[in-house]
Amino acid sequence: MKDFTWWNPTIVVFGKNTIPQIADQLSAIKAKSALVVYGGKAIFKNGVYLQATEALTKKGIAFPELGGVRPNPTIDKVREGVARVKASAVDAIVPIGGGSVFDTAKAIAAGAFYDGDPWDLFEGKASEMRRALPIFGVLTASATASEVNSIAVVSNPEREAKTSLNSPFIFPRVSIVDPSVQTSLPEEQTVNGGIDIMAHTMERLFDGAEGVELMDAQGYAIVRSMIKLIPELRVNPENYEARAQYAWAASLGHNGSLSCGRGDKGDFSSHKLGHSLSLLFGIPHGATLAVMMPAWARYLYKENPTPFARFAEAVFGVEAGDEEERALEGIERLESFYRSIGASTTLRELKVGEADIERLARNAAAFAPFGVLKSLVADDILEIYKLAY
Amino acid sequence: MKDFTWWNPTIVVFGKNTIPQIADQLSAIKAKSALVVYGGKAIFKNGVYLQATEALTKKGIAFPELGGVRPNPTIDKVREGVARVKASAVDAIVPIGGGSVFDTAKAIAAGAFYDGDPWDLFEGKASEMRRALPIFGVLTASATASEVNSIAVVSNPEREAKTSLNSPFIFPRVSIVDPSVQTSLPEEQTVNGGIDIMAHTMERLFDGAEGVELMDAQGYAIVRSMIKLIPELRVNPENYEARAQYAWAASLGHNGSLSCGRGDKGDFSSHKLGHSLSLLFGIPHGATLAVMMPAWARYLYKENPTPFARFAEAVFGVEAGDEEERALEGIERLESFYRSIGASTTLRELKVGEADIERLARNAAAFAPFGVLKSLVADDILEIYKLAY
Repeated sequence: MKDFTWWNPTIVVFGKNTIPQIADQLSAIKAKSALVVYGGKAIFKNGVYLQATEALTKKGIAFPELGGVRPNPTIDKVREGVARVKASAVDAIVPIGGGSVFDTAKAIAAGAFYDGDPWDLFEGKASEMRRALPIFGVLTASATASEVNSIAVVSNPEREAKTSLNSPFIFPRVSIVDPSVQTSLPEEQTVNGGIDIMAHTMERLFDGAEGVELMDAQGYAIVRSMIKLIPELRVNPENYEARAQYAWAASLGHNGSLSCGRGDKGDFSSHKLGHSLSLLFGIPHGATLAVMMPAWARYLYKENPTPFARFAEAVFGVEAGDEEERALEGIERLESFYRSIGASTTLRELKVGEADIERLARNAAAFAPFGVLKSLVADDILEIYKLAY
Repeated sequence: MKDFTWWNPTIVVFGKNTIPQIADQLSAIKAKSALVVYGGKAIFKNGVYLQATEALTKKGIAFPELGGVRPNPTIDKVREGVARVKASAVDAIVPIGGGSVFDTAKAIAAGAFYDGDPWDLFEGKASEMRRALPIFGVLTASATASEVNSIAVVSNPEREAKTSLNSPFIFPRVSIVDPSVQTSLPEEQTVNGGIDIMAHTMERLFDGAEGVELMDAQGYAIVRSMIKLIPELRVNPENYEARAQYAWAASLGHNGSLSCGRGDKGDFSSHKLGHSLSLLFGIPHGATLAVMMPAWARYLYKENPTPFARFAEAVFGVEAGDEEERALEGIERLESFYRSIGASTTLRELKVGEADIERLARNAAAFAPFGVLKSLVADDILEIYKLAY
């Protein structure tokens, strides 16, 4: 077990009819005005906007609004938000939405007290931060765990870059998670979100760390739960109990707890390889992971089959064969599961052309070398995309 | 899954040679003076006192001292500490020790801004608290998880009461956990601490909550780890890796995370039944649990065998027999494990006389009814002590 520092100060208010508490929480810090950030029309249809803003109005909290955040959110929306908060006096940022909305809100909160372009913070200047506006969020789609971590992922299309800011200043102060509002999510989002949750977890499980059985056991439990919950929710999207377990699995998968004692804190190569797919082809984040995680695993499992074999046994009950065989069997079962929930597992199915592979590899290689179980350089990255094709 | 609020703001700095960081952490809040609270001579022998106080001195932080905290700490030491901090200007409380020292420090921190007798806070007045002195601790013995929770357990011998204060104001701000300093702990303490860690975990696992597989899986992992680690540490007390895993298991077992979604948040009947044993007979806390947990389980498992049967399978691999048989087999395996690590599993072995049972039952029944899986009244309590005899 490696040395670590654990800290996660976010208050999670979890359960039915909890959304109006956003106003109580803001009142507790005497907030007079909060920038409400959201995406499209979903929060108007499912009543979340109304629940939240009625509560704000009752408490006398003004709420200027910034809508239109898109999936794979971009830095221009962040810049727009930063300009707004610099020009007016808001005491907090209130994302109402899923991971993209939270990420945008966190980036705006960070940019509020930063003199330069907020994109700088995504390019290595996060350590210059000394404060951020407090974030009080209402989560409407569980997947990225942005509601409980200190990470914001934002794209910069001009730079062809999708990257993350990680700073303790952007832990949400409070996140309200009412799983009942997620019953209206479209099936595709439930599937892609579930794949993302599984990926955050597996990226820890597959990093080769030792002496972390407590964290691994939690990780296996999350993956096993998702393997039950995603199919259940495709059939019964309104199953509250399944939505609730899915939501909490999402938060636990990427609130940092699985990383304790792991040293390098997980191998996020699949996420990085997937980011280039989202950036260049607009593919939803979760969908990229169902392709890149198995391809990445197939590329390198022979060099260290142990974490894959353990996973195969703990998640799929695979006990037959030697370690390498069990490892491969686990990867194949994972792919089969993805296909069973309607996800594509090849680039070809995602309509990425064979001719695009070199461009993809160049884009991802801009961040190379990366990876923990194996440090990937440009040649590795190209091979993995080829395998994924 | 039941609604819940999750919040745990403690920063845990975990690993080798981390103790001097206590001074950096205190400097970050500009502390000029901190009351150092400790127990006996162990921290002088193992170098922890020196490591901590040299760091404080370097940072120019004064440290008045309050030593002599005993196991099963009492309210008189808390009163002494409160008088000290009210008479002088200290900015923080610094427990250096195990759970008893942390609990005492937390109670002092709570009492510092309370006008009445600090015992009031243990008798239902915790909700009157509005603040406490910040707590920056150095943990030298893992077991109670006091380093990561908002609970302080203190005894009042005059009232024949051992009870707890639970307030968000007494979460430690920072806890330093260097497992290497625990390598010098006596075997008895390692065993009793391990039993306590298992009990915190099982008191959640045995509460009958449903839809909490994620929390249960973490709980089973903690118990399985302890079943490996306690015997290992009896043979090789200096095994750092085992000490580290033991320490983090202790924190995870009772930092509140296992309670998420459980509604009543665990059934702590065994702890309550054990407290009377500590109070009236001075028996170490962990030792009381090795007796009371199995007796409690035997008394009521037939009414709801499910959680016990699940435990038997997940922890001991018990698959044969019907649910009730598996449940009993699990309880018996747990008792066998306790005996295998040298713990007593009957009151008789603890030298409690048969004639004392009624007195014990009266003491515990003062808090009745209590319990979640089954609400215990005076008659139940008497029967459980008889079973434990």
